[in-house]
Amino acid sequence: MKNIIIASTSTVHGSGYLVYLLDELTSFYKDTEEILFLPYARPGGITHDEYTAAAAKAFEKIGKTVRGIHEFKNPVEAIANAKGIFTGGGNTFLLVSQLYKHKVMQPLREAILDGTPYLGTSAGSNICGLTMQTTNDMPIIYPPSFKTLGVVPFNINPHYLDPIEGSKHMGETRETRIKEFHKFNTLPVVGIREGSWIRVIGDKNTLEGPLTARIFEYEKTPYELETGSEVVFL
Amino acid sequence: MKNIIIASTSTVHGSGYLVYLLDELTSFYKDTEEILFLPYARPGGITHDEYTAAAAKAFEKIGKTVRGIHEFKNPVEAIANAKGIFTGGGNTFLLVSQLYKHKVMQPLREAILDGTPYLGTSAGSNICGLTMQTTNDMPIIYPPSFKTLGVVPFNINPHYLDPIEGSKHMGETRETRIKEFHKFNTLPVVGIREGSWIRVIGDKNTLEGPLTARIFEYEKTPYELETGSEVVFL
Repeated sequence: MKNIIIASTSTVHGSGYLVYLLDELTSFYKDTEEILFLPYARPGGITHDEYTAAAAKAFEKIGKTVRGIHEFKNPVEAIANAKGIFTGGGNTFLLVSQLYKHKVMQPLREAILDGTPYLGTSAGSNICGLTMQTTNDMPIIYPPSFKTLGVVPFNINPHYLDPIEGSKHMGETRETRIKEFHKFNTLPVVGIREGSWIRVIGDKNTLEGPLTARIFEYEKTPYELETGSEVVFL
Repeated sequence: MKNIIIASTSTVHGSGYLVYLLDELTSFYKDTEEILFLPYARPGGITHDEYTAAAAKAFEKIGKTVRGIHEFKNPVEAIANAKGIFTGGGNTFLLVSQLYKHKVMQPLREAILDGTPYLGTSAGSNICGLTMQTTNDMPIIYPPSFKTLGVVPFNINPHYLDPIEGSKHMGETRETRIKEFHKFNTLPVVGIREGSWIRVIGDKNTLEGPLTARIFEYEKTPYELETGSEVVFL
């Protein structure tokens, strides 16, 4: 049974890395002492070791150890053996390229479908969708495909951002960008605001955290989903 | 001799389509009555006809007619025969996909190198760089390559946006995204603010318009380039 947390962000403004999620993560990872970390998205280009150390520092607070997937000789086996997985944020193009390069996209999907608890933040959340085509990231590297894990039946837009009132900037708003996506794709998109997350248990996807999400369905007016509600598309 | 205008945006806040550039365009396109328009980037998913009509309306003010490339049976010939070309903004992933699909990337490059006046705005500017990897757009479609025209020896970031002071949003700033690009690529990037443009005459690239540009060179601290200055990388 799927057991996933799809979080908009690792960090909310004014708080430390993962701090706002730690209570939730204590019960989420209750059956494992060790978490397998996928540092592939490398925010700011830091090394895999540095990124893994940052994740380890956060999880230390709830008594968990963290190992980076790059420390394993066989990343496919590392995923198959993991009792809990976390993919951090950074650049989604890089993350997806690395998942394909190390041939772990499919094994990761299988582990999640088999019930291994999976936490994603930002880019790590993006890949839970059917494609990475609603990422906000810059295409700094050319991935072999935009297809991702598809462990939920919709796409994710993490760090969802409302139009800034009074802005004189003429670049597209997030909403405009997602509407452009829907000119060529019919998948629903869930825009998750920073501080909220989707809790997946089996086939039930529930919005949690303090904020509403913005839902974009093909050929429908976008709407808000209240926290505590199920994400359902008919 | 190359003759190009690489504009950050088609439209500045509070003004009409291309209005801020019309004086410049009068002299830029002085040797042609007709402009070939590439509507492939389709902002907001509007049709090629609708987009071409919008461009035609703007150019009417300076006595030019506009024909969309989609009106021609043979787009390669249309480009070769054009005396002036304009590629509008929208989604860069879509634009690049269409340029490859219609096999006009290389012909367009050759026309520009042969001296056909070329105006790009936003996505149409992005493709002047060596790659589209510093676009702000969402990857709504998977292009066969990120390589673009390469008619200038650097990459473009149009609609360059400074970090918003006091913002509590944790998504990456534009500067952070471009720095991430430089973890995997060494090309210089020119961040052009809305209202300014790069004027290319032969091998001379000059920043014009009211605003400074932000320059990102590999392993250097980003810096501002004054308007009227040449864009030079040693």
